[in-house]
Amino acid sequence: MKCRRCRATAQVKLPSHHTGFCPECFDVFFSRQVAKAIKDHSMIRPGERVLVALSGGKDSLGLARELARQGHDITGLHVYLGIAGSSDQVLGKVDAFCQRESIPLQVASAPEEGLAIPLIKECLTRPVCAACGAIKRHLFNKAAMDGGFEALATGHNLDDETARLFANTLRWDDAYLADQGPVMPARQGFARRIKPLYRLGEYETAAYAFLAGIDHGTAACPYSPGASFTHHKELLAGLEERSPGAKLQFYENFLKRGRPAFEKAREAPPDLSPCLTCGFPTQRETCTVCAMREAVREAAC
Amino acid sequence: MKCRRCRATAQVKLPSHHTGFCPECFDVFFSRQVAKAIKDHSMIRPGERVLVALSGGKDSLGLARELARQGHDITGLHVYLGIAGSSDQVLGKVDAFCQRESIPLQVASAPEEGLAIPLIKECLTRPVCAACGAIKRHLFNKAAMDGGFEALATGHNLDDETARLFANTLRWDDAYLADQGPVMPARQGFARRIKPLYRLGEYETAAYAFLAGIDHGTAACPYSPGASFTHHKELLAGLEERSPGAKLQFYENFLKRGRPAFEKAREAPPDLSPCLTCGFPTQRETCTVCAMREAVREAAC
Repeated sequence: MKCRRCRATAQVKLPSHHTGFCPECFDVFFSRQVAKAIKDHSMIRPGERVLVALSGGKDSLGLARELARQGHDITGLHVYLGIAGSSDQVLGKVDAFCQRESIPLQVASAPEEGLAIPLIKECLTRPVCAACGAIKRHLFNKAAMDGGFEALATGHNLDDETARLFANTLRWDDAYLADQGPVMPARQGFARRIKPLYRLGEYETAAYAFLAGIDHGTAACPYSPGASFTHHKELLAGLEERSPGAKLQFYENFLKRGRPAFEKAREAPPDLSPCLTCGFPTQRETCTVCAMREAVREAAC
Repeated sequence: MKCRRCRATAQVKLPSHHTGFCPECFDVFFSRQVAKAIKDHSMIRPGERVLVALSGGKDSLGLARELARQGHDITGLHVYLGIAGSSDQVLGKVDAFCQRESIPLQVASAPEEGLAIPLIKECLTRPVCAACGAIKRHLFNKAAMDGGFEALATGHNLDDETARLFANTLRWDDAYLADQGPVMPARQGFARRIKPLYRLGEYETAAYAFLAGIDHGTAACPYSPGASFTHHKELLAGLEERSPGAKLQFYENFLKRGRPAFEKAREAPPDLSPCLTCGFPTQRETCTVCAMREAVREAAC
């Protein structure tokens, strides 16, 4: 197969686009997909400052590099989870990446916030993943608000997004279906959340990271060796194989004709008021993250 | 495994219900699922006459037998398609079934209506399946209206319904998603359409037909050897295997939380007026079926 743009030998094959590219032209293709996502959904307006959540994986580091290359004013944020034998290694990779790419890095430490994941895990009988997700979202948002960033970018790619959409659709979870999308607008106490990689699949983000020489973390979380949505991702990969482009169509058509129906039909979102402890908006007196912090403190006494 | 009701040896295993039954108790289970579907969705009101569309397959014949057993006032309708080497054999099976079960049978002949499927096929460049479906729906509905039947029952089962829902969802086809369900209410010129087998999967309807000794047609249509939605059915079977009950939940949750959103969001349905040729409601001057009839007539001249 020849590169679609320059007719050199294609090294990155993209069946979903019925095409392939040489490394240089793949880079152009990738940049254009990110730029199109940002433009189509007004993700970043001129002069806005963007905080990029850096887990240390291929997606988030690739996203940060690409946003910086496109001239956006970005700062990286890494949430240090305090998991022995894993968190320090990940922080090292994120730090080295940011130095190499000259991207300013902030680190929010879950242990310093009284939220070390191993301690949270001990307080729970269910898997820690949902709590860890809530803590990360809380610390990301806190950093964005405290630092005056207009947008908070995450590295969710097309496979993440379609697997989540598929799970929400199998349950017909109308509240989530009214909300899911590449942009979650800002509202009181929450920065705008954006997903500029939503048009690109995992294979594409992996190829980008590889070609850019990004040294990213690859180890699975020791607390969650099986990635979430694995079966749904396999199933969607089967659909994509039979019908290239099916994933992006599923997602784009949802945005055009699915989400608007659920937005129109939903009742008003619940009222939020400031958490009595941290001040961030919540539906309860004390937000779930502060409740977890309190549970850890009590367990330690 | 033992039968859930009587503790005899289970011969019909139903993973989606985490159970199994002996033949007698499976029969009870099957009847209850049909009765529940009818009751939950007010499919048939007391004293109403029901026309049952009989293709000659396991689903439609099993449905007719079960509705008759439950005391409903039913009449069978078979649409004779006029396909050489196939249609006569199917008609023979339907006729023998109705005699055995003492179910009155009406036959609508597509050739006598100027709609023989082989002639339609010759007039088309695309596959004939959509046209054949439109002709069958037209003749079913005409027979129901002409005969004063309140409801028209079809043998669509859970696998048919979930595969169709899945296809509509992958495309986020909002018009279809606002309409799909086990009941399509009557409206001017159209009888109520009901699907009393929607809670039962293909394995269950096949087991019912086998245990009831129903001699049904098994040959695929010679014009469409690959059944529609095959890949989607396989994919949903994979989901069901991992998570028994997933298909029924997908469908029931759609009815609870998916369809209402699309119904609420949709614009008013298009105005219909009587077809200038046959008088049945259509969006055009001449309905698609009359247009096909005209095309066949012209081709023959």
